[in-house]
Amino acid sequence: MKRIAESTVRRLSIYLSFLEDIGARGALTTSSDDLARLGGTTSAQVRKDLSFFGSFGKRGLGYSVPELSSRLREILGLERQWRVCIVGAGKIGSALARYAGFAERGFMVSGVYDSDPGKIGKQWGGVTVLDIADLERDIVARQYHIAVLAVPAEEAQVLVDRMVKAGIKAILSFAPTQITVPADVTLRTVNMAMELEGLTFALTNRGADR
Amino acid sequence: MKRIAESTVRRLSIYLSFLEDIGARGALTTSSDDLARLGGTTSAQVRKDLSFFGSFGKRGLGYSVPELSSRLREILGLERQWRVCIVGAGKIGSALARYAGFAERGFMVSGVYDSDPGKIGKQWGGVTVLDIADLERDIVARQYHIAVLAVPAEEAQVLVDRMVKAGIKAILSFAPTQITVPADVTLRTVNMAMELEGLTFALTNRGADR
Repeated sequence: MKRIAESTVRRLSIYLSFLEDIGARGALTTSSDDLARLGGTTSAQVRKDLSFFGSFGKRGLGYSVPELSSRLREILGLERQWRVCIVGAGKIGSALARYAGFAERGFMVSGVYDSDPGKIGKQWGGVTVLDIADLERDIVARQYHIAVLAVPAEEAQVLVDRMVKAGIKAILSFAPTQITVPADVTLRTVNMAMELEGLTFALTNRGADR
Repeated sequence: MKRIAESTVRRLSIYLSFLEDIGARGALTTSSDDLARLGGTTSAQVRKDLSFFGSFGKRGLGYSVPELSSRLREILGLERQWRVCIVGAGKIGSALARYAGFAERGFMVSGVYDSDPGKIGKQWGGVTVLDIADLERDIVARQYHIAVLAVPAEEAQVLVDRMVKAGIKAILSFAPTQITVPADVTLRTVNMAMELEGLTFALTNRGADR
């Protein structure tokens, strides 16, 4: 398979979310035009995005909603369960631990890690807060697939290095800092400041760009 | 000014975050190679990104860290304060209301809105939970620049329509659904499922793409 850009994978997620929405409302077929409108792109781009993964749809008939949904779920790795640990039991870690949307998508949060003795042992929405000193051992023993990092900027890289050494291959970071990982580890960053800066850029430059 | 792609704005944010990091550690100059490495791009792309906004740096001497930081802050609209409201006082809204990182970047959260009588009137990290029935009135009276949407999927579009009608021009959504806004409103979506799907895609297809 060719190397797929992050932006392509994002669009696949958007297409799937749209297909699931309209599928739940009974739609059986859709078009690349519909998918394009929702994904903020063109129908040519939709066809190109999907063409990476084989041939879909029939000219003039569009795409079968159940078929394309199922294929996208397979491509995105959603046809199975993933074991997730949350590292950091602060405000964001706490909100994430209680976030019901994870389980719906097959993400099983099975441990939250922190160094605060006041938090270790607590039960949060069915998940126990565990001692961060056991993180490496648990990554091996519990075979976490994904670590969600919700710690302050200054602790982030050290924890990532520890987790990578223990074998973790996928990290979603909420830490407001640049983190580096080896090439065989996938890192995604949710950066609140960056999202807001996208808005302030638009608010500031709007007059000029139209 | 030419229409600037969202991906370019994201890279400007990454460059700025890097410049502030090395600036705080005393660095006075940097190169497009350094900026490229951190931004996950090429030095040609860095020069192209910056060229949209005028001429920076000197051939062979690189960029002045304080000058480029200051110019990027200006471009991104960070040289002023922005009034922010949070709509939805659930788990995510609560974590966001207490998030100290906002104020550091000039984002003043001055109201959290909810319909739950048990929450209205509560003080959260210096911010009061207000009645969502007053949202339109407050958008006008308090002149919020940015609304952060943290409500369930099924309430999202209706609330966005209300806010847009009242004059809001920038929305950051945490609601797990597709939302549509008019062309003069900027919408950014933080979608946890989508971030995780980027990771599971990589975990699933990794063998194949190398």
